[in-house]
Amino acid sequence: MTAHPTNTLRIASDVRLGKGVKLHDFVNLYGCEIGDETRIGCFVEVQKGAKIGARCKISSHSFICQGVTLEEGVFIGHGVIFSNDRWPRATGADAGILGDGAWVCQPTLVAKGASIGSGSTILGGIVIGENAMVGAGSVVTRDVPANATVAGNPARPMNPPSGN
Amino acid sequence: MTAHPTNTLRIASDVRLGKGVKLHDFVNLYGCEIGDETRIGCFVEVQKGAKIGARCKISSHSFICQGVTLEEGVFIGHGVIFSNDRWPRATGADAGILGDGAWVCQPTLVAKGASIGSGSTILGGIVIGENAMVGAGSVVTRDVPANATVAGNPARPMNPPSGN
Amino acid sequence: MTAHPTNTLRIASDVRLGKGVKLHDFVNLYGCEIGDETRIGCFVEVQKGAKIGARCKISSHSFICQGVTLEEGVFIGHGVIFSNDRWPRATGADAGILGDGAWVCQPTLVAKGASIGSGSTILGGIVIGENAMVGAGSVVTRDVPANATVAGNPARPMNPPSGN
Repeated sequence: MTAHPTNTLRIASDVRLGKGVKLHDFVNLYGCEIGDETRIGCFVEVQKGAKIGARCKISSHSFICQGVTLEEGVFIGHGVIFSNDRWPRATGADAGILGDGAWVCQPTLVAKGASIGSGSTILGGIVIGENAMVGAGSVVTRDVPANATVAGNPARPMNPPSGN
Repeated sequence: MTAHPTNTLRIASDVRLGKGVKLHDFVNLYGCEIGDETRIGCFVEVQKGAKIGARCKISSHSFICQGVTLEEGVFIGHGVIFSNDRWPRATGADAGILGDGAWVCQPTLVAKGASIGSGSTILGGIVIGENAMVGAGSVVTRDVPANATVAGNPARPMNPPSGN
Repeated sequence: MTAHPTNTLRIASDVRLGKGVKLHDFVNLYGCEIGDETRIGCFVEVQKGAKIGARCKISSHSFICQGVTLEEGVFIGHGVIFSNDRWPRATGADAGILGDGAWVCQPTLVAKGASIGSGSTILGGIVIGENAMVGAGSVVTRDVPANATVAGNPARPMNPPSGN
């Protein structure tokens, strides 16, 4: 792990880090699992309950929330935002601020070898299949089949790259 | 407020913090007001002149700019970007860099109880009404009526969730 | 340059900083060039090989990757994400994690005086012409002519602002 005269890593004591994990500066991890050899860029937060497999790349400015599972070899671009609550609110019927348990977490799975392009937003309750590719700047609102390529807002199937 | 051996909070002396505000690491606040019990996540910047009401939740990676007012109980998802200048430029007619006063700030209001989904971008000069809901990944280019649900780029009205 | 009791700037020794550059907190720069009088906001990363001209404004939460050249006087809004690899993967055919050289960088040029609105994503291999304007929340998938205004996902030409 990176070491600096001034430590800018926030790694809670309950984080389970695999072997050979590489973390960059300005990272906030708590209550999560990070698999062997996975790399995590700057300005990334990974919440409690998130599970990140081995040999993933999580690029800068991304947010991996509670309820997200990334299998082995997943690529997450820069500025990718996961979510887990389709109808979030700050306060309840009594106008009091809602606590951590006052909503239903919608889990998301990104299967082995899939790639999510930079600047994408992924709604909660989604399955992204093995080796699927999500184009940069997409908003993923429904499941993505294995090996499919999707892009747009909302993300729809597109032709795969020539020669790929 | 959070305290750490290495302080990674940047709270300018002119910030007005309410009672019971919770701030996470890697936050940059200056010249703004934050209401009672509001929570602010990691990697958030709030600029001078922004006003955030009581019991709001501002999630990680979001940017609240000058000219933005959030009323009480507003939910801001992760990676939400406000803006206040529709035709920004770095330099002027003389090719010199423009100073802070060389543009017109377009104010935005997010009314009581509204929620803005993660990964959304909000243009300047917008009013988002009470209890309105902006879906994740939206680009909001015009006003949103109270209690409406909008989504997409540009954001358009959609059906509210069943049973909500 | 900003100085703080706790240093939260990461400026690698190989960065070439021009005269009068202004850097905010929580910035990560390595192997790049930054021109005279350019301003860089919080939570910004600039990768090796990126070249930023004089008198640019790079706003908070943005990511400037390898292969990007910004000419003089370019405005980059908040949360703007560049990319340089159209078909990224974390692992190769042998399931081992891919190294830094295992992909082809697609360079992007943003010409003199152009502005890119907040929350935009720019694909690799793009040329954005002189004084062009990219609207907030856009996904730029093809070249933008000089003086053009584009917006949307994918970004398409739109009418310029009245009186501009």
